[in-house]
Amino acid sequence: MEREPTRVMVAVNESTIKGKPHPSISSKRAFEWTLEKMVRSNTSDFKILLLHVHVVDEDGFDEVDSIYASPDDFKDMRESNKSKGLHLLEFFVNKCHEIGVSCEAWIKKGDPKDVICQEVSRVRPDLLVLGSRGLGRFQKVFVGTVSGFCVKHAECPSSRSNAMPMKLPVILLMTKPTTL
Amino acid sequence: MEREPTRVMVAVNESTIKGKPHPSISSKRAFEWTLEKMVRSNTSDFKILLLHVHVVDEDGFDEVDSIYASPDDFKDMRESNKSKGLHLLEFFVNKCHEIGVSCEAWIKKGDPKDVICQEVSRVRPDLLVLGSRGLGRFQKVFVGTVSGFCVKHAECPSSRSNAMPMKLPVILLMTKPTTL
Repeated sequence: MEREPTRVMVAVNESTIKGKPHPSISSKRAFEWTLEKMVRSNTSDFKILLLHVHVVDEDGFDEVDSIYASPDDFKDMRESNKSKGLHLLEFFVNKCHEIGVSCEAWIKKGDPKDVICQEVSRVRPDLLVLGSRGLGRFQKVFVGTVSGFCVKHAECPSSRSNAMPMKLPVILLMTKPTTL
Repeated sequence: MEREPTRVMVAVNESTIKGKPHPSISSKRAFEWTLEKMVRSNTSDFKILLLHVHVVDEDGFDEVDSIYASPDDFKDMRESNKSKGLHLLEFFVNKCHEIGVSCEAWIKKGDPKDVICQEVSRVRPDLLVLGSRGLGRFQKVFVGTVSGFCVKHAECPSSRSNAMPMKLPVILLMTKPTTL
């Protein structure tokens, strides 16, 4: 067994419900599933990489060029960033901190499916976890297309020099749609 | 963290190379990935469920109505079953035994995509791992269609009574096809 931690990238997004930004049910479930079913009590053997892709709109969002790895990193959060995904990262980083699993969280802007695949190539996680409720327009745009796209396109060179390059393993965590 | 082991179903098949039956590269890699990246040293927290679906052909194969959980279970293997998937199960059960992770292995006959989904519903694993090389006619029939079908159709009631029913999390382990 290798000693490098298993690096699990979890793509997280916000709920479409208006108000104070909070994680979508599918993001939260994907994250919780990863901790409960995969990391379990083996916290030192995993590292959680939390990526939030901010869909660019008219508000002229600037990328937050920082990595967040502990609750303290959010202390100086500017008011203007609270609605732009940092609250989302804070939620997940706090949870990781509580259970003692190391993490890194960051925000990129753009089209989620492209950005996730770019970040996978750059960061080279061992696994990508994507949640999907299969509900709603944004969900469909964000996760439906994204998950299909990432399964086909996300890839990493194999860490074993004698192995063929592998497409990135992707876990799709889909709740049953209530309507199809 | 819950104490029930995480039950990971790995669908395994044989290599299409003629000769003594042995696991396909994609099956082996899916299995090894599960152990190296997920189970790691945390062997007591996982149980590996190994399903081999024997594609029915003209040889009148009878289902092997047994569960194999230790190398000893293969001692009385009949010669006639050696070419029918039992060697395959023996390989994976021995590996599990070596590293000390508990397992159950069994064979079902039929169309892999239907049988895998039926077995998922019956056995209710936490996760299904499918390998795919994206190569060859059999691979395409077995894994290409199977993985797409299972991602869409494999589902389990959630273990949490207050949660929505979830589709089964599926990991697709795809090696990059050398030709498309």
